[in-house]
Amino acid sequence: MFEQLAVIGCGLMGGSFAAALKDSAHVAGGVKRVTGYSRTRGGASAAHRAQALGLIDQAFDTPAAAVNGADLVLIAVPVGATQAVLADLLPALSPKALVMDVGSTKRDVVAAARAALGARVGQFVPAHPIAGKETGGIEQAEAALYQGRSIILTPLPENDAALVARAQSSWEAVGCRVVHMSPEAHDQTFAAVSHLPHLLAFAYMQGLMGQGADTLQQHLAVAGPGFRDFSRIAGSTSAIWRDIFSANRDEVLAQLAMFEGALAQFKHALAEARDEDLARLVDEASAVRSSWPR
Amino acid sequence: MFEQLAVIGCGLMGGSFAAALKDSAHVAGGVKRVTGYSRTRGGASAAHRAQALGLIDQAFDTPAAAVNGADLVLIAVPVGATQAVLADLLPALSPKALVMDVGSTKRDVVAAARAALGARVGQFVPAHPIAGKETGGIEQAEAALYQGRSIILTPLPENDAALVARAQSSWEAVGCRVVHMSPEAHDQTFAAVSHLPHLLAFAYMQGLMGQGADTLQQHLAVAGPGFRDFSRIAGSTSAIWRDIFSANRDEVLAQLAMFEGALAQFKHALAEARDEDLARLVDEASAVRSSWPR
Repeated sequence: MFEQLAVIGCGLMGGSFAAALKDSAHVAGGVKRVTGYSRTRGGASAAHRAQALGLIDQAFDTPAAAVNGADLVLIAVPVGATQAVLADLLPALSPKALVMDVGSTKRDVVAAARAALGARVGQFVPAHPIAGKETGGIEQAEAALYQGRSIILTPLPENDAALVARAQSSWEAVGCRVVHMSPEAHDQTFAAVSHLPHLLAFAYMQGLMGQGADTLQQHLAVAGPGFRDFSRIAGSTSAIWRDIFSANRDEVLAQLAMFEGALAQFKHALAEARDEDLARLVDEASAVRSSWPR
Repeated sequence: MFEQLAVIGCGLMGGSFAAALKDSAHVAGGVKRVTGYSRTRGGASAAHRAQALGLIDQAFDTPAAAVNGADLVLIAVPVGATQAVLADLLPALSPKALVMDVGSTKRDVVAAARAALGARVGQFVPAHPIAGKETGGIEQAEAALYQGRSIILTPLPENDAALVARAQSSWEAVGCRVVHMSPEAHDQTFAAVSHLPHLLAFAYMQGLMGQGADTLQQHLAVAGPGFRDFSRIAGSTSAIWRDIFSANRDEVLAQLAMFEGALAQFKHALAEARDEDLARLVDEASAVRSSWPR
């Protein structure tokens, strides 16, 4: 049980974590009080909107003010901003607080945490919950977002086991199944199962757009459920994906090269009317996809 | 209103059409009685299983027997089998019957109908409902499959307007919104919004599989909702896709070439660390995807 959760970055991910843990002081991994901070770009910050929505108890205007008194801190900002917010909040961070993130890449986040926290990096347990929506923002936050999802923890050599156990309990409290991986294995795996699919979905949309506005509209007017699901993740924006692609560039390029090799097999079988080969490729792929999840 | 619907090919598409129209004699476009035929490959044919499930009234062992007395015939077989079943049923086909298909390609189906029906091709109104599931079979059939979906009709010069209106009424009776296109525009559009996404999803799975069984399992174990939706259509099999890719080869290759051009832009921006360009490509794609459906 935690006394105070501070959410740094009150968007979909941070707001949903707050929503799920708020008023959960009675469960293991639960919290009594939630504070929050969000960058302001004119108007009320998302943290103030989160407070108005009842997702957090109190909004603050600096990371340091939000983490003051917190024993659990969740960094939920685009991965490229991790180092700066950690440096900002460090002076106010309790030596006993557990700090986690929700970033989609881990090697860069670990490097950012080491750079910002120095000798206190042992307080930071890198985390990546496998949940989300194609549209972000505090207004999309919901307590159920993490229910039944996986959370990847990539603990550091500096983390003590009790702190990792506390991290695990907080994610279990929001309904997650906890998986441990190394930062390197994480980044390779998520290049394969998330980053590459996003890149392909964005490129697919650009391929349609390149055919001109009239043809695009003709296509979109009759697109069905296959299009809907295949391209759903192309609704995400560079606010998240710029940093992910940049941070995981090498692994994404490696996955892309393997995809291009596979696509060439389909293309040549199709172009050369080798329908038996094409059918075999289709059925092999189908068998693997149909077996997931077991 | 129709007296008798004959479903040739009692799978997901044909069975769902039967389920939606059965006992619908009271509505415009409804039917009083449903007969069916399916190819037998040992054991009870899918038509007999459809009868046992209550989806059709009576199963027959030849296409001709099933269409005897029918004033509405739905051909719901893989597109490559269209010509053979039309030729089989022609001797028993009432000159007043309306014949439709559900195929995902239209130029080849129109050619098959002309070859099989000759001077009677005016009885055939090509149709493609934009509905489906990644797994087929009569056991997946459900009355709600077509509810709220689009149906593309690609009428022939030989069709008279009253027959096309009857075709339209039957699809409206199962809950579809009717769209008219030429067979050529249909095949181009569906290469773009359905056939290419399937090819990419199959190739994506093959790219993962090429990394070896252990790595594949490591990836699949933590794949989340993005993977789930992006790759869902890769669960389809060559039973459907072999014929579609074969029939629409040129349009699929043309769409693939445009995708490859778009993908190259992403690849080069990523490889050259042109993050601003990559962000722009992402946000342009995201804006179009987010505007669909209006």
